[in-house]
Amino acid sequence: MKLPLPERIFNMVERGSGVAVWRQIGELLAEDIRKKLYAPGERLPTEPELAAKFSVNRHTIRRAMSELEQGGLVRIEQGRGTFVQEHAIDYAIGRRTRFSENLLNQGVLGHIEVMGCQSLRAADIARHLELARTAPLLRVQSLGKAENRCIDVSDHYIDENRFPDFADQLRTLRSISRAYAHYGVTDYTRKWSRITAILPSAEVARLLSQPKTRPILQVESLNVDSDGTPLQYSLTRFGGDSVQLVIANDTA
Amino acid sequence: MKLPLPERIFNMVERGSGVAVWRQIGELLAEDIRKKLYAPGERLPTEPELAAKFSVNRHTIRRAMSELEQGGLVRIEQGRGTFVQEHAIDYAIGRRTRFSENLLNQGVLGHIEVMGCQSLRAADIARHLELARTAPLLRVQSLGKAENRCIDVSDHYIDENRFPDFADQLRTLRSISRAYAHYGVTDYTRKWSRITAILPSAEVARLLSQPKTRPILQVESLNVDSDGTPLQYSLTRFGGDSVQLVIANDTA
Repeated sequence: MKLPLPERIFNMVERGSGVAVWRQIGELLAEDIRKKLYAPGERLPTEPELAAKFSVNRHTIRRAMSELEQGGLVRIEQGRGTFVQEHAIDYAIGRRTRFSENLLNQGVLGHIEVMGCQSLRAADIARHLELARTAPLLRVQSLGKAENRCIDVSDHYIDENRFPDFADQLRTLRSISRAYAHYGVTDYTRKWSRITAILPSAEVARLLSQPKTRPILQVESLNVDSDGTPLQYSLTRFGGDSVQLVIANDTA
Repeated sequence: MKLPLPERIFNMVERGSGVAVWRQIGELLAEDIRKKLYAPGERLPTEPELAAKFSVNRHTIRRAMSELEQGGLVRIEQGRGTFVQEHAIDYAIGRRTRFSENLLNQGVLGHIEVMGCQSLRAADIARHLELARTAPLLRVQSLGKAENRCIDVSDHYIDENRFPDFADQLRTLRSISRAYAHYGVTDYTRKWSRITAILPSAEVARLLSQPKTRPILQVESLNVDSDGTPLQYSLTRFGGDSVQLVIANDTA
């Protein structure tokens, strides 16, 4: 997957022009990305390769890359390299909000990866689920993957009394909706979503492979089962460059 | 509206404690805000007042305030002072999305202030309005005010051929919906909204009285008239600390 460097960008860096060399390199690479000489999702040449081609040191290349990352044109994945940022996915929020369906509608293969489960009590969350303040809850942590790129980091909270051994079911069935089905919950709908723009924590930024200085979309939501009983309270953080949330209000 | 300083925060700054004095002051003020000793929307004592009370110089107070602002606890309004950040407004996005109604539902008096109008052509926007690429458009710039605090900065685009002299009507009627009514458009609905999290431009940050380093919610939207004809394409930027967007999916 190593890409040849487009030829036109050489010999275009002018020293003593009043514009720092790292900025010139950043602008040349940005132009090549905008012109699609590097495609969305493709890996850029490595730092040593770029340093050799431009006859500059790696520090200069790193500074140029950091600028491109701040501008949202590339993302730097620790240990993997620097990738041209993909186009943002239109993620539909409505009565039926389903991760994989949403991505498939955009021509992208997606899946949810369960990271782990913890039992806990949390009065605020119990209230959303219409449970007693001290009711035992299960938190399911998951990553939303779009063709192996992590686009969301989520915490889902459910009633542990209603769904005993849910973590075991998840381990076996490897899908939150299949686990619900095991307990007879075959359908659910989104009751409400509340969207805020925030900066990510260091941990969330790392999981989303984005800088801490780039905003993310945080969506708090409540899903209810077909009886209207609260089923799942979730906190989902979408990478700000990866996702745009879309609300369609169909026909009168 | 000048507030007395709560007494408990004095003599609590320890020099040589290993924690910078500005940080200690920031933490003490933050605690007072969290405990509601200063109410949301209230003005904090001035820099000279705080400097005198803590026996530090104004620079130290300014640094503490800047930290509180970065943390979203206060907002600094140029020339007016420093205010405790109000709770975020739940702004409902649905088929009927109306600024003043939305705020009134939250017990807040709101109004839209029209800043100015410009004629322009823009192929991308004309496409959203289902017009020819070179169709003349009118851009209406507005501020959304919640009890005089600016919570959104918007650009609305309409078909200038369909609404000739719209700017004059706006000047006379002082309301976008009353101006539409003049042309016989008495109702409209939101067809879609697309939400992203971004950092504000310097100009938008200034209008929203927030730092450039705090994210905002940008909502791109299309309103259609009762025939379903595109009426208005808008780009609205909500202060990230002022507004949370809420999507309610009512009954099955």
